[in-house]
Amino acid sequence: MKVLLKLEFDGTNYHGFQIQNNAVSVFEVFQNALIKILGEKVDIKGCSRTDTGVHAKSYYISFETNKDLALSKLPLSLNANLPMDIRVILAKEVDNEFHARYSAKKKEYTYYIKNSHIDDAFNSKYYFKVPYKLDENLMDKAAKEFIGEYDFTSFMSQKSAITDCTREVYSASVVKKGDMLEFKILANGYLYNMVRIMVGTLIKVGAKKIKPEEIKEIISAKNRDRAGVTAPAKGLFLTDVIYE
Amino acid sequence: MKVLLKLEFDGTNYHGFQIQNNAVSVFEVFQNALIKILGEKVDIKGCSRTDTGVHAKSYYISFETNKDLALSKLPLSLNANLPMDIRVILAKEVDNEFHARYSAKKKEYTYYIKNSHIDDAFNSKYYFKVPYKLDENLMDKAAKEFIGEYDFTSFMSQKSAITDCTREVYSASVVKKGDMLEFKILANGYLYNMVRIMVGTLIKVGAKKIKPEEIKEIISAKNRDRAGVTAPAKGLFLTDVIYE
Repeated sequence: MKVLLKLEFDGTNYHGFQIQNNAVSVFEVFQNALIKILGEKVDIKGCSRTDTGVHAKSYYISFETNKDLALSKLPLSLNANLPMDIRVILAKEVDNEFHARYSAKKKEYTYYIKNSHIDDAFNSKYYFKVPYKLDENLMDKAAKEFIGEYDFTSFMSQKSAITDCTREVYSASVVKKGDMLEFKILANGYLYNMVRIMVGTLIKVGAKKIKPEEIKEIISAKNRDRAGVTAPAKGLFLTDVIYE
Repeated sequence: MKVLLKLEFDGTNYHGFQIQNNAVSVFEVFQNALIKILGEKVDIKGCSRTDTGVHAKSYYISFETNKDLALSKLPLSLNANLPMDIRVILAKEVDNEFHARYSAKKKEYTYYIKNSHIDDAFNSKYYFKVPYKLDENLMDKAAKEFIGEYDFTSFMSQKSAITDCTREVYSASVVKKGDMLEFKILANGYLYNMVRIMVGTLIKVGAKKIKPEEIKEIISAKNRDRAGVTAPAKGLFLTDVIYE
């Protein structure tokens, strides 16, 4: 049977989802737990690579097994073998053709910016603090400039070797809740560090260093140097994955 | 000048607010930071003792000093000398007669119960998980039975030596948000472990082991054995203190 699992994880202590040399990844920890339950090593597909320190509220994994699993009990038994910062929320059977990564049509990321000079005592691992005043209306206007199908080379880390840099952004917005600014984006895919570079650029807009209208020029330039700095990983969450 | 500070703290790593022998308290850590800023040791009054592991979103401290402090900068300078799980949110000058504890008229506590068989990956330090189904309507009905002026001996840890056990509860409710049940209570004061024993009793109501109408009998009995168990500290937050 083909199994789909929904996970949450706090990325603070992990070098992303995917396996890394000499560094603990969510994949590795999860694989060890799954081997304990299944008694065999299976081929695990994750819905996306995530950077070191990035969190996930909706992460999907698929794998195939010949074992006859009681899926309703699988989250509990896996959770008993996982550290508290990785939780399995749901397990269900899917079609044989399903692939956690290739069947995903859209992914939503959310980035949290705390616009305050004071951290909070509880959740400082889950946002990026910006102490100077940001204008959320300008940032929202700038975010909407990302909507559409573009070559987002300007918003890709130069370390990446990818050649086709066209992605389609379906929605993007900045909403203020208390002193927290939430940037949400839904797209068919993302380039390396794309969301974090978008956030670094939106922060320049919020601080009135650049105008919302300049976003289109930055996109057209296809030049990483034109966009803002890469915002820290800890404010970023994979919040939704939409399958067909 | 008399100074009032508003703090937040994550109580996970502290033996409550008050100084304890051989255990780190919020008081001790805060006092050390204040000495660094003031260059002198001052008499610090906290708004309440809190149990080991209890959190605070609104904790107030008052102290007197002859130093001419720039209060707008005090939170920043204190925070630079405090661990991340204690944050100073606000500083203001108050009347000479003000006392963080004795001037407090009402205090609000909030207790978070996650009614799910699955923990979450991010906030497991901040709620008590109850895996079996709880009926929030029955719990809310039972919570409202606490409203009024009563001798709450049944809801006091037997370790306490207090003799006047009458307290006035102004409001109490249980509200469900997603899979989280929030018990909020506002009273003029609390007995030792009172909120946590109330929560243990409300959980029995939610599990239909006792009826909401039995709360009044439990109060009248003035017998700790009639109430439920003491719920864990980690779900409890001091969320508001009302001064005149």
